[in-house]
Amino acid sequence: MTDTQSTGRRVKAQVLSGFRDQLPAQMLLRRTLIERARKVFEAHGFEPIDTPTLEHLEVLTGKAGENEKLMYHFLDHGDRPVGLRYDLTVPLARFVANHQNELPMPFKRYHIAPVWRAEKAQRGRFREFWQCDADIVGSSSTRADAEAISMVAEILKAVGLPQFTINISHRKLLEGLARGAGVPADLAPTVYRAVDKLSRNGLGGVRSELVEAGVAGDAADRLLALISQTGENQELIEALRENAGDDPEVVQALENLGELFDLLEDLAPGERNFRLDLTLARGLDYYTGIVYEATVDQPKVGSVSGGGRYDGLVGMFSGRDIPAMGMSIGLERIIEVAEEFQLVSAPASVCDAIVIYHDDTFGYASRVARKLREDEFNVDLSLLGRKSFGDQLKYADRRGIPLAVLIGENEAAAGMATIKVLASGEQETVPAAMLGAVLASIRDR
Amino acid sequence: MTDTQSTGRRVKAQVLSGFRDQLPAQMLLRRTLIERARKVFEAHGFEPIDTPTLEHLEVLTGKAGENEKLMYHFLDHGDRPVGLRYDLTVPLARFVANHQNELPMPFKRYHIAPVWRAEKAQRGRFREFWQCDADIVGSSSTRADAEAISMVAEILKAVGLPQFTINISHRKLLEGLARGAGVPADLAPTVYRAVDKLSRNGLGGVRSELVEAGVAGDAADRLLALISQTGENQELIEALRENAGDDPEVVQALENLGELFDLLEDLAPGERNFRLDLTLARGLDYYTGIVYEATVDQPKVGSVSGGGRYDGLVGMFSGRDIPAMGMSIGLERIIEVAEEFQLVSAPASVCDAIVIYHDDTFGYASRVARKLREDEFNVDLSLLGRKSFGDQLKYADRRGIPLAVLIGENEAAAGMATIKVLASGEQETVPAAMLGAVLASIRDR
Repeated sequence: MTDTQSTGRRVKAQVLSGFRDQLPAQMLLRRTLIERARKVFEAHGFEPIDTPTLEHLEVLTGKAGENEKLMYHFLDHGDRPVGLRYDLTVPLARFVANHQNELPMPFKRYHIAPVWRAEKAQRGRFREFWQCDADIVGSSSTRADAEAISMVAEILKAVGLPQFTINISHRKLLEGLARGAGVPADLAPTVYRAVDKLSRNGLGGVRSELVEAGVAGDAADRLLALISQTGENQELIEALRENAGDDPEVVQALENLGELFDLLEDLAPGERNFRLDLTLARGLDYYTGIVYEATVDQPKVGSVSGGGRYDGLVGMFSGRDIPAMGMSIGLERIIEVAEEFQLVSAPASVCDAIVIYHDDTFGYASRVARKLREDEFNVDLSLLGRKSFGDQLKYADRRGIPLAVLIGENEAAAGMATIKVLASGEQETVPAAMLGAVLASIRDR
Repeated sequence: MTDTQSTGRRVKAQVLSGFRDQLPAQMLLRRTLIERARKVFEAHGFEPIDTPTLEHLEVLTGKAGENEKLMYHFLDHGDRPVGLRYDLTVPLARFVANHQNELPMPFKRYHIAPVWRAEKAQRGRFREFWQCDADIVGSSSTRADAEAISMVAEILKAVGLPQFTINISHRKLLEGLARGAGVPADLAPTVYRAVDKLSRNGLGGVRSELVEAGVAGDAADRLLALISQTGENQELIEALRENAGDDPEVVQALENLGELFDLLEDLAPGERNFRLDLTLARGLDYYTGIVYEATVDQPKVGSVSGGGRYDGLVGMFSGRDIPAMGMSIGLERIIEVAEEFQLVSAPASVCDAIVIYHDDTFGYASRVARKLREDEFNVDLSLLGRKSFGDQLKYADRRGIPLAVLIGENEAAAGMATIKVLASGEQETVPAAMLGAVLASIRDR
């Protein structure tokens, strides 16, 4: 970094705090992971869309509420209030309203794209980061919920994180159980907050917090007895149903959950990682039905995905309720973990090989490179023909290119090429016509 | 579009003027074209990078000059002047300065990403659009110039536009020819502007414009005689060399061009579309050497790519000159043309097939879908199991899904599946175990 420059202006080369450059090796890892998610989405028939990064501010503030202050916004050249998108869900709602006559319903889409939030910059938190969302709009079927949740499991396996738990509940369940236990309705938010900390604070801690907030001791005890029940999912649902009386919302929520776990048996047979979690509250108050959160247990990564049914939001712009189910993968966190634990193998360079040569063998070398490209290899034709083979190999090594094809005077004269494996130093001279086959066998071994 | 909504707030669903949603079919076309460009870049060993969409404003204004007023900029939450990137070249220069110790030179990178300009909104001009650039940084070799230009030819063929001309010149050539003809140096910009319109205004028109701007009549005549010479590239270079006297800049430019056309014979043998164009001026004044512009002649598309050598810019942030050669593909224009003339075939949906069923065959249908996904098919498992097969087929048709797999009671009972080709209505019932093979043969025929 420097603050001088040859043209006389002084410009400091620096990136805004919370923003990042992506170097080639980082891009290739990111791309590998994105491709794996994309492949799962498309295998399930989800279609890609894109929306503008800038929207009318009033569109963006539709949902964010108190997060509005984290939104990047300004007046554009026509003095219109505009903002950078804060998430991919509000733009989806606007998109569905704009195109409702063109979109066959149910509409399954995924969207993998950057969003912007003026968060306090800190380790692992960025102001520009990618979200990775899939949503099913226009279906209230529990099959949609089950499909979204089964895709989360598939994606976590695809990115090398098979040791996860997907905790599942229903937005109305905890509220209804609290009501049944005798907690006043206006204390519901307190209940969510307190219960959410059960694993950290234990039953005693949660009880204290509830009582301090005004929940009667016996109501708190009844609630804690209900939610600390454990068991196989369907058995637990059965037990709750017996205890829950006839609160229609609780009955409906339990029925929904029962159906969901049945469907998951069909969609992801043998998968043992789906767990009814009565303490799952999920912060966002736009959820209306099934909610889930996925945590990776090994390595200790924590929450990597969350979502649920939100039947009120998409209709915000279209003037009628449109049911929707969504899942979101914490792409940035997964990329971080993939890097740290080398979960997936991504190359450091796009190149399969570099062709190196001396100036007087350029013509032959360029034909060799062209032929390899026709055979679908990614080949760098060195621009360092004036330097020694040693220097050119050093360059290849710094780029992380695994193989070099050496074209010296002898090779050019004899119609040959020398292949060198950079990692081992091993080399072999073969007729140019066989080069592609030999490179392929080395690459694929 | 509506301005009412169920939650009581009134939000109009509209996209900012000059911005666009991408529906699935548009995304898939866009992706197909981007993939073809990417494939050419990577075949030549260019690595992907990314940079932040927001940068310090002073970084962005490094080059844009009078275009600064088209830049989206504002004060961020820390009152820092920031802006949305205006192109991909200035961010590249900043990137190179920031990472110069990590980047092996020459550094070949491509970058396909959106940029933002507050242009007057009009047909075919957008405020958010994608650029598609490849640059070679850190090499002054004419081989770098030749590689960039040969890639332009490859990409135009790859996107279905083989009838193009790549006009090539050298930034110092026209200037030097004008100097040799007796045009005062301070009139050089006038010369560029006038000569650039040769094809539109003819020799007479250009002459009038030159004379009106203060160029002496005989100087204008000498210049026009020089630049209206035609001929095979190397012969034309030879003829100019004989006429050009000993102006060192002209001699150097012609030598460069001679070498370039020789190299293009090596890199793109048989390609007849490279043409020395003495009238090529290219607007941007940061070019320092070879410049090119590619026009598609059939269909009549006009300019689709331009670029050249710019040895002064990348050093702007690093304090020392770093040579660079760049090419830029007019991606948005190509997408527009590809849509209009159906240049490439892109599917309307990611789905190879949809599995449709009735509620009581869901379990079997879901197993069929899962098996097909394991065989690498993209399969939508219908969410309309309560509707008739006719309705489900209509839905598939609207989405542009080519094949349906029908699972009725008979199929489920017999372990069979019925394949229906939506376009022809043709159908066939096969054992479920054979389904993948049959679908593949239909898809690939």
